[in-house]
Amino acid sequence: MDYKGLYIRLNEARDAVEILDQTRLPCHETWLSLSGEDELCEAITSLRVRGAPAIGIFSAYALYVLTVRRHAPDYKSFLVSFKEHCTRLLATRPTAVNLKHAILACVLAVQRANPQTVAVSTEAIRLTAERLQTEDSEICRTMASHALTLLKPSDTLLTHCNAGPLATSRYGTALGPMILGAERGMRFHVYCDETRPLLQGARLTAFELRRAGVKHTLIPDSAAFDVLKNRGVSAVLVGCDRMAQNGDFANKIGTAALAVLAREAGVPFYVLCPNSSIDRSIAHGGEIPIEMRGAEEVTSLYFTEPVAPAGTDVYNPAFDVTEASCITAVITEDGVFYPPFDFSEKEA
Amino acid sequence: MDYKGLYIRLNEARDAVEILDQTRLPCHETWLSLSGEDELCEAITSLRVRGAPAIGIFSAYALYVLTVRRHAPDYKSFLVSFKEHCTRLLATRPTAVNLKHAILACVLAVQRANPQTVAVSTEAIRLTAERLQTEDSEICRTMASHALTLLKPSDTLLTHCNAGPLATSRYGTALGPMILGAERGMRFHVYCDETRPLLQGARLTAFELRRAGVKHTLIPDSAAFDVLKNRGVSAVLVGCDRMAQNGDFANKIGTAALAVLAREAGVPFYVLCPNSSIDRSIAHGGEIPIEMRGAEEVTSLYFTEPVAPAGTDVYNPAFDVTEASCITAVITEDGVFYPPFDFSEKEA
Repeated sequence: MDYKGLYIRLNEARDAVEILDQTRLPCHETWLSLSGEDELCEAITSLRVRGAPAIGIFSAYALYVLTVRRHAPDYKSFLVSFKEHCTRLLATRPTAVNLKHAILACVLAVQRANPQTVAVSTEAIRLTAERLQTEDSEICRTMASHALTLLKPSDTLLTHCNAGPLATSRYGTALGPMILGAERGMRFHVYCDETRPLLQGARLTAFELRRAGVKHTLIPDSAAFDVLKNRGVSAVLVGCDRMAQNGDFANKIGTAALAVLAREAGVPFYVLCPNSSIDRSIAHGGEIPIEMRGAEEVTSLYFTEPVAPAGTDVYNPAFDVTEASCITAVITEDGVFYPPFDFSEKEA
Repeated sequence: MDYKGLYIRLNEARDAVEILDQTRLPCHETWLSLSGEDELCEAITSLRVRGAPAIGIFSAYALYVLTVRRHAPDYKSFLVSFKEHCTRLLATRPTAVNLKHAILACVLAVQRANPQTVAVSTEAIRLTAERLQTEDSEICRTMASHALTLLKPSDTLLTHCNAGPLATSRYGTALGPMILGAERGMRFHVYCDETRPLLQGARLTAFELRRAGVKHTLIPDSAAFDVLKNRGVSAVLVGCDRMAQNGDFANKIGTAALAVLAREAGVPFYVLCPNSSIDRSIAHGGEIPIEMRGAEEVTSLYFTEPVAPAGTDVYNPAFDVTEASCITAVITEDGVFYPPFDFSEKEA
């Protein structure tokens, strides 16, 4: 496994998690070395690390770093602090289910540690984090391969937000087929929604496609319908923060509109969703908690001066729920799934 | 006619057009005094004055100022320079038809001047500009009254871009019923799309609704579908830059998507369109020229540093065309019109 290009990594010498600070891109490639509970949690809430698979992987590494630095004197006190760290990390962001799945994987690893000592349990968390990252890398590549069976070598594609290597481990979910396709000599042209308010499409997706040598054009989110109707788009590809049993899924705000507009324009709409993003405990999208974020993201962040009068009321949901009826196909590491969807049980 | 609150005014002592620079709002209320041809045209192309009716009114005043300051020695040289000014102003922005209609009104006034002297013709242009502004003010109020017959006193509304007093004379087109409604004691709650890339919704609509005492909430454009489905919106109200005979119309990029999403959510979609914005010479929206604007509006303008990698390709159409089939009703100063639309001839 080639780990070059990973944006989350464990520095074992310093017992720290290192990440490329996504809030500083594209102008500044700033690596952070994080080890305190406050700064690890802040990195998630402030979106220094973001993307459903990435926050899962990061949380597992964070659990390891917090545990190893705590130097618990005995197994009982280890369990107390481990539980506290899990609770704190779980509370950082509510929508992406990968966070919960990653923490749960660490909890299972601790439960299964044999013998149940501080040292063995701590090592089990580290191995779990590394496994999650390695698996995600392989899963993204497998999903990308499946998705490429749906695309032609010179297709024009459209994507929303950022679902690339920065949001995962390698390749990404929605960006996976674009990047793997480029490696295979395919010549896609990708329209990237800038994705207000945090501009992940402009700041991160354009950055990643440029690095991967994929032709791309940035558009305001509101130009997507024009592009779908008039610019020869063959498919829309998006990632997923949490999918319900019936295929309803939460993703970056604007995704639900894009799905309706793609259907209106007759363009296939594909969701790239690893099993780690499927919540098999909920029946439909109405059960997904949607994170609300602050007004300043809309009125002040990144701007030289406020773009709305002081005190303006703002409604800023980070995600919306796309109805399964708008989806052409869901691509997981297990293959391509067409409606009607039933993700109540994992494929064998 | 109460002219207080007008954002375009003639300073007769200085032979200049004065405008509130819309690019500096909401942080800076900067009035500009413009009299040179370059700066008058730049004010339009740089969107210091914008909004279909407003650029029509402004252009007529600009024609007057340019003409009176030229001091043509005879009628023949007056005609030459007048034609040059018309051509230059007409070339500033292609989409809104109001600009063409206003220039045409001035041309007609000059043709009808009696006697055909420099002084009488110049005065005819001034009177035309004042008439266009006075009429627009009355038209906006009339349209607002018509629109209010479609609304209930505590409706939740949604609008895109800015179609308020700044974009017209007084009241505005889409904002007209909101502002007139507030004067009549109605208590609307308006969701304003921020309207990327130039953020006219955040910078101008929030500013105007605050001044008018209308409750409002700012949203990223991509949150509009969520608001339409989940926040009890009763109607979408938008303005119009150019409407074809069949009801297809150009308006700020994002309007066409909003119309489809409103239909999907079962929310009525109303277009407030003065006759000055109807182009009776074209059959359908495909004939409307769409202005393309620069990449820097998307990647750099208003930002502390570029939000996309240097050299990123950008597609930035200023407008899109909404199909008439998505419109619930068109409101002009002549009343409320329902589909099928036929605007090939002016109402008697």
